[in-house]
Amino acid sequence: ARSINLAVIPGDGIGPEVVSEGLKVLSSVLPQDVKLETEEYDLGARRWHATGETLPDAELEQLGKHEAILLGAIGDPSVPSGVLERGLLLKLRFAFEHYVNLRPSRLFPNTETPLAGRPEIDFVVVREGTEGPYVGNGGSLRTGTPAEVATEVSLNTAYGVQRVVRDAFERANARPRKKLTLVHKNNVLVYAGQLWKETFDRIGQEYPAVSTDYLHVDAATIFLATDPARFDVIVTDNLFGDIITDLAAAVSGGIGLAASGNINPSRDFPSMFEPVHGSAPDIAGTNTADPTATILSVALLLRHLGHEPEAARIEEAVAADLAERHTGRTTRETGDAIVARVSA
Amino acid sequence: ARSINLAVIPGDGIGPEVVSEGLKVLSSVLPQDVKLETEEYDLGARRWHATGETLPDAELEQLGKHEAILLGAIGDPSVPSGVLERGLLLKLRFAFEHYVNLRPSRLFPNTETPLAGRPEIDFVVVREGTEGPYVGNGGSLRTGTPAEVATEVSLNTAYGVQRVVRDAFERANARPRKKLTLVHKNNVLVYAGQLWKETFDRIGQEYPAVSTDYLHVDAATIFLATDPARFDVIVTDNLFGDIITDLAAAVSGGIGLAASGNINPSRDFPSMFEPVHGSAPDIAGTNTADPTATILSVALLLRHLGHEPEAARIEEAVAADLAERHTGRTTRETGDAIVARVSA
Ligand SMILES: CC(C)[C@H](C(=O)O)[C@@H](O)C(=O)O
Ligand SMILES: CC(C)[C@H](C(=O)O)[C@@H](O)C(=O)O
Repeated sequence: ARSINLAVIPGDGIGPEVVSEGLKVLSSVLPQDVKLETEEYDLGARRWHATGETLPDAELEQLGKHEAILLGAIGDPSVPSGVLERGLLLKLRFAFEHYVNLRPSRLFPNTETPLAGRPEIDFVVVREGTEGPYVGNGGSLRTGTPAEVATEVSLNTAYGVQRVVRDAFERANARPRKKLTLVHKNNVLVYAGQLWKETFDRIGQEYPAVSTDYLHVDAATIFLATDPARFDVIVTDNLFGDIITDLAAAVSGGIGLAASGNINPSRDFPSMFEPVHGSAPDIAGTNTADPTATILSVALLLRHLGHEPEAARIEEAVAADLAERHTGRTTRETGDAIVARVSA
Repeated sequence: ARSINLAVIPGDGIGPEVVSEGLKVLSSVLPQDVKLETEEYDLGARRWHATGETLPDAELEQLGKHEAILLGAIGDPSVPSGVLERGLLLKLRFAFEHYVNLRPSRLFPNTETPLAGRPEIDFVVVREGTEGPYVGNGGSLRTGTPAEVATEVSLNTAYGVQRVVRDAFERANARPRKKLTLVHKNNVLVYAGQLWKETFDRIGQEYPAVSTDYLHVDAATIFLATDPARFDVIVTDNLFGDIITDLAAAVSGGIGLAASGNINPSRDFPSMFEPVHGSAPDIAGTNTADPTATILSVALLLRHLGHEPEAARIEEAVAADLAERHTGRTTRETGDAIVARVSA
């Protein structure tokens, strides 16, 4: 596209600070003839406190008109748990059918890992984003009494599973190692597990070049800690994906570097790009948050919109920056350093 | 008790080999005047192939008459996923109300950890064992068609949550650090999450000496990899407990050392002790499996039955053995080494 019409949701805590660096990098990497238009949306804790609103329909509709969304972080301890997560973040993922929640993990040289021996880490998790235990289908009976019963229902459809599994096979097929691992818990969650496993096996037959593997989610956490090099592409459900991508981030440079894309591959709706980390209210406003995860999310955004060279340029700049990173840098200094590299 | 009437389920794969070492250690640590009676139950893959049975009612009833159960490992690739897990292992946990699934993690000197810097690890996970997504309440509609819908329901009751949370507070209160962390995902699973969180907060008021903490399960995996020393006691639901205890085992010596107890504190039913690892069919019968996790499970069994000095003796023997362990030892050699230490 020769123009990008971007919605920006800075959000809460460190969100505005990291988003501002992400936008700086975005503007400076784009070719001169690509016009960047941004529109900011005031959504998150502040808005909720002021108006009681999380995401009014009119704004959801407005957001839907953009080509992509860049989101900083949502959430604050002053808001009851779940209100913004479900009323805003998950509402966007579900409304815009972000069924591919893409979370790459790569251990860049010179970055932190708790793992001894610095294993080679370079895999990507394709987390389902619109189903599973995240659908909000639960309830509570006799709430607050000794007779309370609370339920949470995981919903899984052939429609929803096949589209994300197919996307994961496509991604695996396009990578040099061509290896795809399904992570589930099909020895306990037998109904959902069977749907996932049979879909995986069936679609796999269309991709003879891709080697496949299955791991229970508990075993997957063991390998993420002891042998992350074994992974190339992982496909998994919404909740398991949430859990293992935080662990994946922890072992590959920390949550400050983990980028993500909430992608609707059909482009019927805007895809949304955000760092995996939260709003970190304890350091908000101190100009110390690491904007790298947001900057890498901008790279995913560019790739999604067809600007592959620019996406690669950002990733190379980040790798080079991390390779000689000094500690104690400010949010803006890190942004400036990446800008300098992508503009060079 | 001056006698122990123990049911033994060796199970599949390496199960019989490791159980046999566990029993050797058990016999040699018991005071002369404590009589040990064991009865073996042939349950698992072999039995299922031979008879189609997983756990007939008559045997369940028989098992219920023992004071405790020692289990090796259940499962084999030749059996469809879920059959033995749900028909045998989970059936036992549910039938005998094993609501405290106790999983200690301790990094013994000289053992393996993937973590750089060998952090101090000494915590215990109290995993709920009779509810959550493990209840088997799910289904599939239009199975195998493009219109399939599959569900899994997590059931949580005030009755079930309060008893395990209370047990965890008791355990935390009895430890020097007196710290209890609740792990859940209450920003997404809001109904179950609220039941867990409010129960935790309410019961916590009865334990003013215990300091408390809450972590989302995704964040908990980060800390298990980057700062496991922060944990003392963790209480969590059945599925989250399954996931984080495998990760906990991975960072604290490996799955070959992880012991567990499926405990019914009321003693209305026998509690069951088992290594966290699986049946490892690839090395079955080779006399190479590490029996340490089973031997440590025997220590948990003895503690549960009131034989604290003997439990402690096993744990000291294991620690001493690990401290000077040579590689390449056989299953029996490891068992013999522990026997030598506890009898010395
Ligand atoms: C904030 C929360 C709802 C969210 C999730 O669970 O998906 C977050 O943990 C993430 O991974 O993006
Ligand atoms: C075998 C399986 C059913 C079991 C579980 O999920 O509880 C195992 O992983 C465990 O942790 O004991």
